[in-house]
Amino acid sequence: MAIRLGDNQYGKAEVRLVHINRDTDVHTIKDVNVTSQLRGDFEAVHTKGDNAHCVATDTQKNTVYAFARKYGVGAIEDFALRLARYHVDTFEQVHGARQEIEEYTWTRAATAEGPHNHSFVRDGRETRTTVVVKDGAEETVISGLEGLTVLKTTDSEFHGFPRTEYTTLAETTDRVMATDVKARWRYIGTDIDWDKTYASIRAILIETFANHHSLALQQTLWEMGKAVLEAHPEVAEIKFSCPNKHHFVVDLSPFGLDNPNEVFFASDRSYGKIEATIERDDAPAAGRVWETVPGFI
Amino acid sequence: MAIRLGDNQYGKAEVRLVHINRDTDVHTIKDVNVTSQLRGDFEAVHTKGDNAHCVATDTQKNTVYAFARKYGVGAIEDFALRLARYHVDTFEQVHGARQEIEEYTWTRAATAEGPHNHSFVRDGRETRTTVVVKDGAEETVISGLEGLTVLKTTDSEFHGFPRTEYTTLAETTDRVMATDVKARWRYIGTDIDWDKTYASIRAILIETFANHHSLALQQTLWEMGKAVLEAHPEVAEIKFSCPNKHHFVVDLSPFGLDNPNEVFFASDRSYGKIEATIERDDAPAAGRVWETVPGFI
Amino acid sequence: MAIRLGDNQYGKAEVRLVHINRDTDVHTIKDVNVTSQLRGDFEAVHTKGDNAHCVATDTQKNTVYAFARKYGVGAIEDFALRLARYHVDTFEQVHGARQEIEEYTWTRAATAEGPHNHSFVRDGRETRTTVVVKDGAEETVISGLEGLTVLKTTDSEFHGFPRTEYTTLAETTDRVMATDVKARWRYIGTDIDWDKTYASIRAILIETFANHHSLALQQTLWEMGKAVLEAHPEVAEIKFSCPNKHHFVVDLSPFGLDNPNEVFFASDRSYGKIEATIERDDAPAAGRVWETVPGFI
Amino acid sequence: MAIRLGDNQYGKAEVRLVHINRDTDVHTIKDVNVTSQLRGDFEAVHTKGDNAHCVATDTQKNTVYAFARKYGVGAIEDFALRLARYHVDTFEQVHGARQEIEEYTWTRAATAEGPHNHSFVRDGRETRTTVVVKDGAEETVISGLEGLTVLKTTDSEFHGFPRTEYTTLAETTDRVMATDVKARWRYIGTDIDWDKTYASIRAILIETFANHHSLALQQTLWEMGKAVLEAHPEVAEIKFSCPNKHHFVVDLSPFGLDNPNEVFFASDRSYGKIEATIERDDAPAAGRVWETVPGFI
Repeated sequence: MAIRLGDNQYGKAEVRLVHINRDTDVHTIKDVNVTSQLRGDFEAVHTKGDNAHCVATDTQKNTVYAFARKYGVGAIEDFALRLARYHVDTFEQVHGARQEIEEYTWTRAATAEGPHNHSFVRDGRETRTTVVVKDGAEETVISGLEGLTVLKTTDSEFHGFPRTEYTTLAETTDRVMATDVKARWRYIGTDIDWDKTYASIRAILIETFANHHSLALQQTLWEMGKAVLEAHPEVAEIKFSCPNKHHFVVDLSPFGLDNPNEVFFASDRSYGKIEATIERDDAPAAGRVWETVPGFI
Repeated sequence: MAIRLGDNQYGKAEVRLVHINRDTDVHTIKDVNVTSQLRGDFEAVHTKGDNAHCVATDTQKNTVYAFARKYGVGAIEDFALRLARYHVDTFEQVHGARQEIEEYTWTRAATAEGPHNHSFVRDGRETRTTVVVKDGAEETVISGLEGLTVLKTTDSEFHGFPRTEYTTLAETTDRVMATDVKARWRYIGTDIDWDKTYASIRAILIETFANHHSLALQQTLWEMGKAVLEAHPEVAEIKFSCPNKHHFVVDLSPFGLDNPNEVFFASDRSYGKIEATIERDDAPAAGRVWETVPGFI
Repeated sequence: MAIRLGDNQYGKAEVRLVHINRDTDVHTIKDVNVTSQLRGDFEAVHTKGDNAHCVATDTQKNTVYAFARKYGVGAIEDFALRLARYHVDTFEQVHGARQEIEEYTWTRAATAEGPHNHSFVRDGRETRTTVVVKDGAEETVISGLEGLTVLKTTDSEFHGFPRTEYTTLAETTDRVMATDVKARWRYIGTDIDWDKTYASIRAILIETFANHHSLALQQTLWEMGKAVLEAHPEVAEIKFSCPNKHHFVVDLSPFGLDNPNEVFFASDRSYGKIEATIERDDAPAAGRVWETVPGFI
Repeated sequence: MAIRLGDNQYGKAEVRLVHINRDTDVHTIKDVNVTSQLRGDFEAVHTKGDNAHCVATDTQKNTVYAFARKYGVGAIEDFALRLARYHVDTFEQVHGARQEIEEYTWTRAATAEGPHNHSFVRDGRETRTTVVVKDGAEETVISGLEGLTVLKTTDSEFHGFPRTEYTTLAETTDRVMATDVKARWRYIGTDIDWDKTYASIRAILIETFANHHSLALQQTLWEMGKAVLEAHPEVAEIKFSCPNKHHFVVDLSPFGLDNPNEVFFASDRSYGKIEATIERDDAPAAGRVWETVPGFI
């Protein structure tokens, strides 16, 4: 028996980068949060404190900022791939990299003269995400979004579930359904129009949630994932981790009032937690990539 | 010398109420967070544990839900006034009330067929707020917003400040300026089109931030407040509490790169904190109302 | 009618300062968060963008760090007073200052050889706070704590409250009572052993909460405040803002189980919110100081 | 090609359970947060909205509360195992379960008469965690802690790292090192004194952090993990995900002051992120369990 070092990775987390393109008077802004981590031959760092192989986390941070100046940011998937490739290609001891980026959305300030050239409002609540995992030559891109909160006031039922000794829940044919969509989808390949695909997937998720008549949140997620895969052959699989944010009909009968699904208490905890993968049966296998990219959280 | 009870108030906080109007197939939604507190003759509760005067906080919560059913929600200012008046008018021992409401915004889900009838996306990041303070017959309405994050990539300078023994900051004629607007404005009277006024003030804040050429965040706040007061005679004063969210130009010279205001580090802490009141000199006095409605935080 | 600048203050918020005393091998640590704000003749900054009077917020940050080196930190009240006096005494245009400090607690790491000389564990959940408001020569020190979470499993009743048309709450003679104590107390004068007084007040709050048989959270707060004022003549008043964190007895009867106050659901929202001032009738008046030091929040 | 359902699980998250043992006047309290999820034959729920197999999440919540009454809570590992076994043994369609529990610590209130019988203070900042993953007959218990914040003021060096084109970091032989320890360890078997082992591992982590002279945070984590595995043959592996919380020495030279590692700026972001597994080479394999128990986050 011996104790040994197993999987490991290290780097700089949450490098807050704002990049402004000022090429014309109509400025554009990219607002991202980069986490860079490296994998490889780092045993001596751990067991001996020998840092000869240890590309400092501070160096990784500097690389992020320097690359933003040299190449711009562009789609976050491209920026993450660029960082991953640089590290793996440049340093012999670096065999792999995990580059995670979150992107925040800004829209132009509305003014009487129209959208402003250089003033912006933080808009929307969801975060666009990507994780690029590079293992030698193999590159996996898993993109997604989180914090997309959606709600439907009707067209949602829940009944037919087993009544066990601990079941008290009433069946319903009309309930409020709300969730914060957290999704991650794994791409096949890297030759993809990232921004266009992201916009399309986001729209599909919202539209399917809106239009689907739901018998269970599980079914809604299935439909959402199926719609994404049908429209996007470049997506191998999509994973959802979605709370069922309960909106309870308040019992107003003690006050002589009815409540025909009109007044709700929006509960914080507990909440349902529904997690599902929708995948192609012929997609390339994911390997161990999901071990360090939580699809279910 | 004696020890005595001073100012006090109590109630139920953060009553999460979602109200759905289903009168037609085109549903509407109001999503609010209500904090109801009462003031009055509550000395015996404190000093003796005698609850004869103590309208239970649970009762206040029930009242919120029952009123939503009876009267709908409407503008949060009207809902808060209704609650305040009910408590003061109904219970002899209740001499005043403080009703605070936050409102969250939803927009209709975008679909191929247009905005959806009954599916919504949580949109925007700011919260609309109101605090109604009723003291006997006197009613004060202080509304506001928070979490409105804005940024301009140019048109902001900062120079001419004194250089003391502890000054190291360089002067600049071009910097990124960003803040989370938190504002509260006090209305004159209660006969106001709350929703329309809110929308107008929000638009003025954004437009003034966007268009004003700033020499200091203080100046920007002044201009924003002045524009609100000029457009809205029904506003007695407006208070801002705004962080100066620093975006530092990253020094890329060690890597042989320039950085013409293009690559920034968005810092978390510390941050500037600028707080100012812009007021009419002939407005009715606020009395002690700001002691329990933090305008500066 | 004219629009004018009203109350205002500005400075640097959340200057995160860790000070280590290394005079001996037994190191000590002070971990604080300083918010420095100035008041005075700043009209031209607002109305003209003329910064000649504007001691930069960056300069205020530097002052915090330089003072930590020059004088150490000591009790946070003393550090805040030192900063306030420096600003008012040094700059003609500065007529007042508001200095707020939070302090976080560390305890020595436990080892087989006893408490460690230079390794620490962040301990406790509460934050010690102070706000020093200096207005010309007048100095007000308001200290406090927040995040002190306490719970008693019995010795708490709640009954005798009025049954209105919206009352459904059952009376109880035995309930769980829990709160996060947030308290601020105003000192008389500044010649005080701050650390000793803080420790004493904290102990009194906990002991009174523990030993008092409660008929209402209001009564508990009254008793806690009274005990503080009786023990500490240097305290003019104390303000509490405390949630009543509801622990609901779960109804297990559908499963053929009783529940003799044993199994609880700890609810997040809504919660009771109880706010009270306990004061001396002969204490010096607070003036407007509470307008910018929220005692109720 | 076909689209199919892949891995999935569902249940109720964050069931807030407080259990009080009142057998004697000396009450005890367990404060936990339970997330129960099931795996198995749930294809029809997803693809058809057929809930015949779907043990409702509400039912799972009820089960948590009922079990607390029937069996008490005990060690969170035992409670999670009990829930997992119940679900897999009771329902044919349930082939596996994931039960996650967080535990919060309370200590008795200190009074003049000693620790109080039934009043408590929330103490400590770390959360004890466990995840039980049951896959048919196979049971894996992964316990851990998070939020254990530790800091050493000296005995930490960092040098000898490669100087690349993007390296600017200075080498140091004396720095502050601070981290929030997040660790998860996988047990071999389930016949373990959970509480005693947890207390021992927690103490080892703190003591090793305190006593180890560090050349890199990686080395510190290795030493911490090795010490745990050496003392606990029942632990197969331990995973750390730890931020390197930077404390920067403030440059006071512009003010004519030195700074011999005394005054620090505690930075929020970016931070180092160091993740490592320390494992036995002869331990049973983990299988896919880490895919849904993030060891690195």
